[in-house]
Amino acid sequence: MATIDNGVNVQALLEAREALKGAPEAAQFTWRASSKWQKGAHSTTSIEKFFGLGQEQTHKSESVFAADHPEIFAAEDNGITPIEYLLVGLASCLTAGVASVAQNRGIQLRSVESTVEGGHDIRGILGADSDVRNGFNDIKVTFKIDADASAEEIEALVAQSQKRSAVYDALTNPTSVTVEVA
Amino acid sequence: MATIDNGVNVQALLEAREALKGAPEAAQFTWRASSKWQKGAHSTTSIEKFFGLGQEQTHKSESVFAADHPEIFAAEDNGITPIEYLLVGLASCLTAGVASVAQNRGIQLRSVESTVEGGHDIRGILGADSDVRNGFNDIKVTFKIDADASAEEIEALVAQSQKRSAVYDALTNPTSVTVEVA
Repeated sequence: MATIDNGVNVQALLEAREALKGAPEAAQFTWRASSKWQKGAHSTTSIEKFFGLGQEQTHKSESVFAADHPEIFAAEDNGITPIEYLLVGLASCLTAGVASVAQNRGIQLRSVESTVEGGHDIRGILGADSDVRNGFNDIKVTFKIDADASAEEIEALVAQSQKRSAVYDALTNPTSVTVEVA
Repeated sequence: MATIDNGVNVQALLEAREALKGAPEAAQFTWRASSKWQKGAHSTTSIEKFFGLGQEQTHKSESVFAADHPEIFAAEDNGITPIEYLLVGLASCLTAGVASVAQNRGIQLRSVESTVEGGHDIRGILGADSDVRNGFNDIKVTFKIDADASAEEIEALVAQSQKRSAVYDALTNPTSVTVEVA
């Protein structure tokens, strides 16, 4: 499969899989974010360092993300809404998975595009109806993939990406979240 | 409470709550993201338009977010990892909630900072151990708040923010996610 190149080093990932089978402690990662309130619903959140493979790690550079509420919520729209960040995570996670699985299966990708739609009844967060949940009602992801593969193989790529996706799991299954004041 | 100003127009939010009680269809929002694969695990995701209050809406500008895997995963680290976007969403959602609740309760905030840590056993996504989930093991948020309020009032602010947070709900409770190929 020397001619197939989606830019994913599958060999390294397969070696990591084998190595971590015998070293579960090295597989324990901690991802971190630091956030500062600006004004109103506007905040900025920085990401730079994380822990993994038994030691402190750092991204090549610090990334800073603005979040706010839109003008129709009487806010200033200095960034996307917090809940929209979940859609960014989901789209990018499934897309990275499609590229990795395609590489592993010897399928050359030409383009991968997706749209994500999250339905949200805002009566929950406004406290207008206590029977309405605060989060999304549901999320729909639609992929458009051009690749050297049959429609069935492309369907299978997406299914396998879903099966191994960190963000898909985090949204479809509950996670314990503890919130404290220092 | 004329002297309290956290930059949140609480009056408008309370009016929206009352208005949407009688107009549930206007409360149905759809948030959207469009993503494009670049190379390897690198993708870019754009957010600009959404639907709500019965019509198409648009943010003041389009926002584009890069995601990638880090160099220790044999990738190029052209952006934060997909799962880290969930931490951005969580921190910013709880922070916006703290500001809104503080305004509603007449509490002047001086500063709100938070750190979020997400524990993640990457044996799940690597397929090294099928008993390990793909997503976070757990998430811990720690707030540091300086405000004209007692420690108990600050604790209560954070608790109420959690109770009304879209992202806290989306991470702690399951959401149906449908993935299709067009």
